[in-house]
Amino acid sequence: MASNNQLLREEKVFKDPVHNYIHVQDEVIWSLINTYEFQRLRRIRQLGTSFLTFHGAEHSRFSHSLGVYEITRRIISQFERGSYTDWPKEERIVALCAALLHDLGHGPFSHSIEEAFHMNHEDWTCRIILGNTEVNQVLTQVHHELPAKVASVVSKQYEKAIVVNLVSSPLDADRMDYLLRDAYFTGVEYGTIDMDRIIRMLRPYHNRVVVKESGMHAVEDYLMSRYQMYWQVYFHPVTRSSEIILRQIFRRAKELYEAGHKFRFLIHPLPALFHKDLTVQEYLMLDESLIQTAFSQWVYEEDELLSDLCARFMSRKLYKYVELDPADYEKVDEIRRAFLQAGLNPDYDMEIDFPSDQPYKVFGAGDKINEQILLLDREENLREISEVSDIVRSISGIQRGKVYLYFPENKLASVKGNLPVHIARIFERTDFRS
Amino acid sequence: MASNNQLLREEKVFKDPVHNYIHVQDEVIWSLINTYEFQRLRRIRQLGTSFLTFHGAEHSRFSHSLGVYEITRRIISQFERGSYTDWPKEERIVALCAALLHDLGHGPFSHSIEEAFHMNHEDWTCRIILGNTEVNQVLTQVHHELPAKVASVVSKQYEKAIVVNLVSSPLDADRMDYLLRDAYFTGVEYGTIDMDRIIRMLRPYHNRVVVKESGMHAVEDYLMSRYQMYWQVYFHPVTRSSEIILRQIFRRAKELYEAGHKFRFLIHPLPALFHKDLTVQEYLMLDESLIQTAFSQWVYEEDELLSDLCARFMSRKLYKYVELDPADYEKVDEIRRAFLQAGLNPDYDMEIDFPSDQPYKVFGAGDKINEQILLLDREENLREISEVSDIVRSISGIQRGKVYLYFPENKLASVKGNLPVHIARIFERTDFRS
Amino acid sequence: MASNNQLLREEKVFKDPVHNYIHVQDEVIWSLINTYEFQRLRRIRQLGTSFLTFHGAEHSRFSHSLGVYEITRRIISQFERGSYTDWPKEERIVALCAALLHDLGHGPFSHSIEEAFHMNHEDWTCRIILGNTEVNQVLTQVHHELPAKVASVVSKQYEKAIVVNLVSSPLDADRMDYLLRDAYFTGVEYGTIDMDRIIRMLRPYHNRVVVKESGMHAVEDYLMSRYQMYWQVYFHPVTRSSEIILRQIFRRAKELYEAGHKFRFLIHPLPALFHKDLTVQEYLMLDESLIQTAFSQWVYEEDELLSDLCARFMSRKLYKYVELDPADYEKVDEIRRAFLQAGLNPDYDMEIDFPSDQPYKVFGAGDKINEQILLLDREENLREISEVSDIVRSISGIQRGKVYLYFPENKLASVKGNLPVHIARIFERTDFRS
Amino acid sequence: MASNNQLLREEKVFKDPVHNYIHVQDEVIWSLINTYEFQRLRRIRQLGTSFLTFHGAEHSRFSHSLGVYEITRRIISQFERGSYTDWPKEERIVALCAALLHDLGHGPFSHSIEEAFHMNHEDWTCRIILGNTEVNQVLTQVHHELPAKVASVVSKQYEKAIVVNLVSSPLDADRMDYLLRDAYFTGVEYGTIDMDRIIRMLRPYHNRVVVKESGMHAVEDYLMSRYQMYWQVYFHPVTRSSEIILRQIFRRAKELYEAGHKFRFLIHPLPALFHKDLTVQEYLMLDESLIQTAFSQWVYEEDELLSDLCARFMSRKLYKYVELDPADYEKVDEIRRAFLQAGLNPDYDMEIDFPSDQPYKVFGAGDKINEQILLLDREENLREISEVSDIVRSISGIQRGKVYLYFPENKLASVKGNLPVHIARIFERTDFRS
Repeated sequence: MASNNQLLREEKVFKDPVHNYIHVQDEVIWSLINTYEFQRLRRIRQLGTSFLTFHGAEHSRFSHSLGVYEITRRIISQFERGSYTDWPKEERIVALCAALLHDLGHGPFSHSIEEAFHMNHEDWTCRIILGNTEVNQVLTQVHHELPAKVASVVSKQYEKAIVVNLVSSPLDADRMDYLLRDAYFTGVEYGTIDMDRIIRMLRPYHNRVVVKESGMHAVEDYLMSRYQMYWQVYFHPVTRSSEIILRQIFRRAKELYEAGHKFRFLIHPLPALFHKDLTVQEYLMLDESLIQTAFSQWVYEEDELLSDLCARFMSRKLYKYVELDPADYEKVDEIRRAFLQAGLNPDYDMEIDFPSDQPYKVFGAGDKINEQILLLDREENLREISEVSDIVRSISGIQRGKVYLYFPENKLASVKGNLPVHIARIFERTDFRS
Repeated sequence: MASNNQLLREEKVFKDPVHNYIHVQDEVIWSLINTYEFQRLRRIRQLGTSFLTFHGAEHSRFSHSLGVYEITRRIISQFERGSYTDWPKEERIVALCAALLHDLGHGPFSHSIEEAFHMNHEDWTCRIILGNTEVNQVLTQVHHELPAKVASVVSKQYEKAIVVNLVSSPLDADRMDYLLRDAYFTGVEYGTIDMDRIIRMLRPYHNRVVVKESGMHAVEDYLMSRYQMYWQVYFHPVTRSSEIILRQIFRRAKELYEAGHKFRFLIHPLPALFHKDLTVQEYLMLDESLIQTAFSQWVYEEDELLSDLCARFMSRKLYKYVELDPADYEKVDEIRRAFLQAGLNPDYDMEIDFPSDQPYKVFGAGDKINEQILLLDREENLREISEVSDIVRSISGIQRGKVYLYFPENKLASVKGNLPVHIARIFERTDFRS
Repeated sequence: MASNNQLLREEKVFKDPVHNYIHVQDEVIWSLINTYEFQRLRRIRQLGTSFLTFHGAEHSRFSHSLGVYEITRRIISQFERGSYTDWPKEERIVALCAALLHDLGHGPFSHSIEEAFHMNHEDWTCRIILGNTEVNQVLTQVHHELPAKVASVVSKQYEKAIVVNLVSSPLDADRMDYLLRDAYFTGVEYGTIDMDRIIRMLRPYHNRVVVKESGMHAVEDYLMSRYQMYWQVYFHPVTRSSEIILRQIFRRAKELYEAGHKFRFLIHPLPALFHKDLTVQEYLMLDESLIQTAFSQWVYEEDELLSDLCARFMSRKLYKYVELDPADYEKVDEIRRAFLQAGLNPDYDMEIDFPSDQPYKVFGAGDKINEQILLLDREENLREISEVSDIVRSISGIQRGKVYLYFPENKLASVKGNLPVHIARIFERTDFRS
Repeated sequence: MASNNQLLREEKVFKDPVHNYIHVQDEVIWSLINTYEFQRLRRIRQLGTSFLTFHGAEHSRFSHSLGVYEITRRIISQFERGSYTDWPKEERIVALCAALLHDLGHGPFSHSIEEAFHMNHEDWTCRIILGNTEVNQVLTQVHHELPAKVASVVSKQYEKAIVVNLVSSPLDADRMDYLLRDAYFTGVEYGTIDMDRIIRMLRPYHNRVVVKESGMHAVEDYLMSRYQMYWQVYFHPVTRSSEIILRQIFRRAKELYEAGHKFRFLIHPLPALFHKDLTVQEYLMLDESLIQTAFSQWVYEEDELLSDLCARFMSRKLYKYVELDPADYEKVDEIRRAFLQAGLNPDYDMEIDFPSDQPYKVFGAGDKINEQILLLDREENLREISEVSDIVRSISGIQRGKVYLYFPENKLASVKGNLPVHIARIFERTDFRS
């Protein structure tokens, strides 16, 4: 396509604690960063409520998006230096824009709000790119088809499979940036990966991005880091507890709204959120400042449940938890009944949570090839990494997950005597790092 | 005083990217961290609007306060290990609480809001400690005089001068933490100081905290880091530009309020802020979420000025700037008149800014001894550091500062032809890293 | 025992890039560091020939020994702060001395020289501690039984099993220091472990050092780091190649010596090394300077084989290598014969190498308990880590190892036409990062 | 010149703890690294005897030389990306080779041996490049004039002044690498500079490398780091003490040799060193292994002075020191006489040392322009940095230096009663961190 993209007269840089400098050479990238929609990402944290567990984790999706862009830029630049013919050079701008914008549609406390209101951030990213927005204008100025192309990369339907694969795969710039960045800001040691080596080992090959076999160990290390970050950071039970509070707040507010409750405070566009008919402009007003402000005001709502949940969230008075033994799983219904009889509300006073993840999944021949990491050996054979790596094969089999039961400790304490002994005993194992 | 403070059954830790782990051993510290007032500090950024210049600088005063507490804990622990008789052991809890709580009264975008509404965060810290708050309750439970003691350390009036000196001096835990932390989160290299060595060299001596002479070079390095952080980070003109927008928003909103403007959005406790009669409870509701939410809504206010300023802040469309030559200083009034004649509003469309700082000030004999760094040599002589260190003497004389003129570029462009040539020429030097 | 150990008047510190500062509080430790025998460790590299692969790996056993001492000091200090009754306080000095001195008997290029001359560094450590040495004097001055105690900890026969366990176990100070230190100096990312957390989780328990269950993930991460360091650093084929050259030099020199060869250069105590009747004083003269000087001079020996090998070592002209397929293993004898027929010397012109390691071994009930990592849960149950951790169970099963064939490329090239085709083909896979 | 340099088929990398990866793209660089002469730099420490003060400082000139090459490569690559016409592209290989080889002629414990035997490492670098060496062969293969060109860059006489300026100036790759590297290996915090930013700010301009004015603060920080590294690391009195021992050993051995002493151990090429008629091949045999081996053997020489000095060096039993007051300077002759009368040998039992450095020197208009840092502003004016920077002006005026008197403590103690009281008193200030 005849594109109007121009290079900046002089490269611009952002100082970044993870990548040292983020380099912007193209006018379109610079203009995208300066849009209202992209600046909004500063008001949405990268790790949702994780800052309540790891106080350093206050970084935003803005930082992360710049990082994903930068890694993608470095990968493409490596492809160009190597003059690999399998890389379609004319796709550079499409790929960079998609990398920069891939998280544009995230809402405040993304995972919880999506679950509560059945939204999907990928859809919203596409709607923002294609809608009446500054981002759309900037892209259109370069080429009238650019918004559609970028959106189709985000939704994984772009015709050039290698561009989709570059932006979204088990070893993509998104994952590399978040491992490094989340480790940096939380302060945990697990996220150290040899990104420079991985980038140097990537090769465009037959519509895919593959890894030279000599980079296998760096990839192993990356997968192990990912495994540890999931279990040590992303699935930390304190974080899960705060997400449960969050989802309960959303659920309760929606119930009240639907029941015609007169809110003392109901700021625009919250009603549209409850109705699930947000326009793009309304959606863009949703950020974590607005949500936190609503919660802060709702402490003074008359509904005791909503007020209590909001106060919990603002003061970090989270639910405690116990790990359930497999033997307890079948008792969940019994616990619910016992709670009800004891005067508790099992819809809010208990939550079962079962985080699970496989650090790397192996698929059969017919499966989604986009989710495989392929190694390229000297004879140009491709092999899926777990065929070659003992360590990947070992850990990709692990099915792990603990079941936790969360509950408000003070409420439980007040009725504990009324619970059947064998139920009460479950709560004696409380292990809360409150 | 007979205190009810107790040690925790088991030490608790927070993972911290700067100090690795923050160790909590005392129940009172743990309880203070869990108060509503202290948790509120998570919603106030440590560096105000610096995140608009350095995108990593999204860390909060919560993190910083934990860091100050931790450094103070390590210093006291060093004093106790050394069994120095000049350290009053019974003051440990007072000092730790004061270190943890010293920033409790900061408001949202602290420096700008204080300037706009003539408030003082130190006063608010004391009011919160002494008021009807969770923090006050926790302290009172340990000893009924503890709130008053902690507040008097914060206001530098505590009778034990060494406690005040420990918490507030040119080489205190506050400054050490913010240099390290701000460098870490912005990603700049300047803040690396050898904190472990400095701590090891501190000695309690005759009601003061002094430094062993052999620690002089580590202190020199600390002062040079501080100098660089001021000029590279804290006084960065892009940050100053965003603070100017912020102050203008506060100023305009107050003007409108006082003029009886009917705000479409005026959330509690903003009216009380405009009246300057905030109660402690109202003050505590002010955080950066609420301010950002207000700005976000005010984009839709009818007043064009307020609406434009808020849109600028939310989308980071800041004022541009030129550096004024000394020869231009006296032209400021002339520029104002020229702006007025050209149809601009000099009260909002231009701002003069003159940041200045001395990295370390030397005082005469009669001066505030709390602001000196004293070195203790082997013969137990005390000497003020700039008497001994060439480098400190050299840099403490530097009076530095650039004068900048900030302005909205688009408005200026539209009237530029109407400005006198010698005034218009000043704006050709624009140097904005927009 | 009534000990003469005294605290230093003032703590001394060493600046260390890995642990920041190494703290010395006891006179005996300070004196041991200043002995001739301990200072000799500066002339023995921690990682032997690894510096030929990773040029940063030039650090010595001196640095590492200080590091092991420091970690042990921190562990004991944690035990003392916790007042755990299972830790025998009076063993502090024995443990610290053993930690500091555990590597005292290492020879130059330790692994290769031990293999070539059937020596054992642990034996030599004990001989130096018990012999007529400065180290022995320093220990004896504290208590006449101290040398024997320290030596018996080194040889794992000390009666207090917990002291042996502290200094030598799968999670000891030695391993923690070398992972961190070797990662730091080579520059690889793999060695990052959360040492502070591991130390905090260690508990003295019934004559053993065990780990609190909540430290399990930090231990998992440590074991994975160890796994990666083995395969990426310690077993790197270029390092193995240089060790092969080294062993061949030792072997050839010994052959020549035994055959009565008149060396142009044969410095004291090399003859005694060849005789295998080194005294302690002679052994202590062996360091890497002396060995490198001998090699440098032997370049001019008449024996072509020795001369060539030494020139290779000094100029880093190493053997190339091919990985053998399992199908090739049984051909080794055939290769030897082919080499012989083609005029090569299979005793020197080829070497088979098979590095192998298990990152963590699980033993049956009757096995060496010292080699297990035990987790202590809240009910004071002990469980071996692989029973609890999916990831440890997965990786501890991996039996990994590649078989490599090393050879001098130039010699092979000159005779390649004379090799049978199916043998010659093996060498076409050469993969040498020379 | 028509050059035979070729690119490698595939870029090679070295893992480096300071620069992460060192990238080699040109065959000539790869071949130079693999020469005997360059590999010899592994046996010469970057910081001489500093490892006796900072145990981590065991890194070699080999590592440093790779680092200087890499920084130069990055600077040139930035020049090429910017397509600056003032950079003569055809000089790339000359500059890279000169950067890599600039330290090739360093001898063992370079500063001390040069002082003792009146040698100059720059001369030796040129002799090696121009002599009958592998390095010369490799360079000649690219172009027959390349050795001469590279040598003339090293000796600062190359006709293209910008190449000399790139490789040798107050802000060159050499200095940037050693600050970063020495800080990394010693573990001190002072060496952190923002190298990426400095490199980005460098511009080729009229036969010089200058700095864009906006890079001024990064340069200030670099100069301050340099200042601190000099005083904290390079001039550390313990290091000076070990250098004094070293020079005394060289001096004594030479005296003995000239007096016809029969050495028990006198390895080739030490006699030629004493004669000062080393050939290039002999010079190349000198490395720190050989020198340490000689010292180790000389412990057993009959000459008591030599034996004692060597034992001191091998066991790190250094001279103690006192700082002299200005009032004491004129007493030096008196001290010498008192030592002589008391039975000491003032030629060996005392040394006066006066380290001095200016972090950055400002020269008048007629002065060596190569030693200035020039800033380039937007109007293309060049200004020497201390005209613009307050901080540089302040510190470049500092003339600093302490005078120390070094002496063998045990010898002094034995005669102290025989010294005049006012002389003996000087030695009571001993401050030795032995």
